[in-house]
Amino acid sequence: MLGRRRGLCCVPGEDFLRDTAHRDPSYRQNILDMTACLLACGIEPEKTILFQQSLVPLHSELAWILGCLCSVPRLQRLPQWKEKKSSVKEPSVGLLTYPILQAADILLYKSTLVPVGEDQTQHIELTRDLARAFNRLHGTVFPECKMLSGEVPKIRSLRNPTSKMSKSEANSKSRIDLLDSPEVILEKCRKAVTDFTSEISYDPEGRPGVSNLIEIHMAMADLTEDEIVEESFLLAEDTGMYKMRLAGIIAESLAPVRERVIAYRKDPDFLTDVLKEGAAKASLIAEETMEDVRRLVGFR
Amino acid sequence: MLGRRRGLCCVPGEDFLRDTAHRDPSYRQNILDMTACLLACGIEPEKTILFQQSLVPLHSELAWILGCLCSVPRLQRLPQWKEKKSSVKEPSVGLLTYPILQAADILLYKSTLVPVGEDQTQHIELTRDLARAFNRLHGTVFPECKMLSGEVPKIRSLRNPTSKMSKSEANSKSRIDLLDSPEVILEKCRKAVTDFTSEISYDPEGRPGVSNLIEIHMAMADLTEDEIVEESFLLAEDTGMYKMRLAGIIAESLAPVRERVIAYRKDPDFLTDVLKEGAAKASLIAEETMEDVRRLVGFR
Repeated sequence: MLGRRRGLCCVPGEDFLRDTAHRDPSYRQNILDMTACLLACGIEPEKTILFQQSLVPLHSELAWILGCLCSVPRLQRLPQWKEKKSSVKEPSVGLLTYPILQAADILLYKSTLVPVGEDQTQHIELTRDLARAFNRLHGTVFPECKMLSGEVPKIRSLRNPTSKMSKSEANSKSRIDLLDSPEVILEKCRKAVTDFTSEISYDPEGRPGVSNLIEIHMAMADLTEDEIVEESFLLAEDTGMYKMRLAGIIAESLAPVRERVIAYRKDPDFLTDVLKEGAAKASLIAEETMEDVRRLVGFR
Repeated sequence: MLGRRRGLCCVPGEDFLRDTAHRDPSYRQNILDMTACLLACGIEPEKTILFQQSLVPLHSELAWILGCLCSVPRLQRLPQWKEKKSSVKEPSVGLLTYPILQAADILLYKSTLVPVGEDQTQHIELTRDLARAFNRLHGTVFPECKMLSGEVPKIRSLRNPTSKMSKSEANSKSRIDLLDSPEVILEKCRKAVTDFTSEISYDPEGRPGVSNLIEIHMAMADLTEDEIVEESFLLAEDTGMYKMRLAGIIAESLAPVRERVIAYRKDPDFLTDVLKEGAAKASLIAEETMEDVRRLVGFR
């Protein structure tokens, strides 16, 4: 997130807590891996406050207060709840209220720009609603944040191109992970769900599978969809051939990232220090916001 | 609550946040008033840690974690949610998840005995379930708490003797407040809903209104129901006369409490100090519990 002061990057890694009631023994490792990935992708701790969310307990304090300003039906109407609740037997309170914690993640730092995928549009809208509700009832504390979309606002699942690519999806074949080897990337691309038309064309509505691959390609190679389609036509590729070539492009783009992730993973103490130092800096900002919040709400 | 170490008494006063989305300008005052009442009723800060819940942000941190162990349907089945959600237009997330915060209030201090009214039975059951779920998944941290019921486990509303007497009920005629003057108490007793039978008898099922008055009487005068009914028979009282006499007994019992409340209210700085000192003590215990919780969950 981009706050008023500088860049901020919060590592929740709480997905297991949010999504399920089951213990994931590798939870601590997940946090460190996510940190390694963010650093490998270019987040610089000197410029950006990179921190572990759960080291700043004020997130849940603000979330509780925001939850009192949000109706239950409002959360139940969110598409991610509708989608996810049916995939688990007993959807948890953490899953339902997760968008409120996310709003707290943003508002605690008075963030103004939030770089997220298109699937987060309604969560950002909720955040703005909660900020407005708080400001109206208690006094102005929070700015209204805006989404910051990339050129490819939504990457879709390789197994089901109508839903987003997600790191919490059970089937790992649905996504490319930053640590995937070239062989694994090839296998995932080869099995990516497309359709029965053999040539390559860009048509997100009619051909979501192939169009998703083209969008991944656009993001990786900095090309337009037309350039990609043209290139593929000149190479006389069918979908199968295109998938193989794309797998190579992805593997090549990700190779340096992967190398850096592997290097960072070898130094868990460094990762832990980055997160701790970030948390100390984040806490200073968060504490300042919460002082205003607590006073206005009447806690102090 | 009675923790392992000593007595603990937490002043939530967050009812406005829990129940509604509307700002109550007297919220800060409510906290101080509740503190004055608790002190006036005999809570001694030398023996009991009396503190303001919102001065210890760890309550919401633990509540978030417990929320991930609780299903939404589990909360929706709780009778207080069913009852209260229909009385507001847009029931808030705070209202739905309030029993989880209550569980955190208890578990944060590893409390073993919780003195609450009968209406809290299912909330205590939820607390025990959450403690068990946490212990099973992450490792044993929490003891299983038990309810500590008084001799009169449930005082009912004067306006509707099938529901509990509640300080958050809109109609103040439904309850006796500790600050009510003898005149107000008389008026509230006089208007208490009873039935069309004129003599006094104890029959909670058949005559909930009169029986509720007898139970209040029992608590005030340390008499059994039989003694009260007998006394009223000897005095040849009808319901109206009994209500007048009971009002006098209540007013007399509460007079010293009321005086002390009034005295304490004149010293808000003292009340604030009591709450702050309590919070400092409570934080030490809470921090110790949360250190275990965070480590077991994988936050550290």
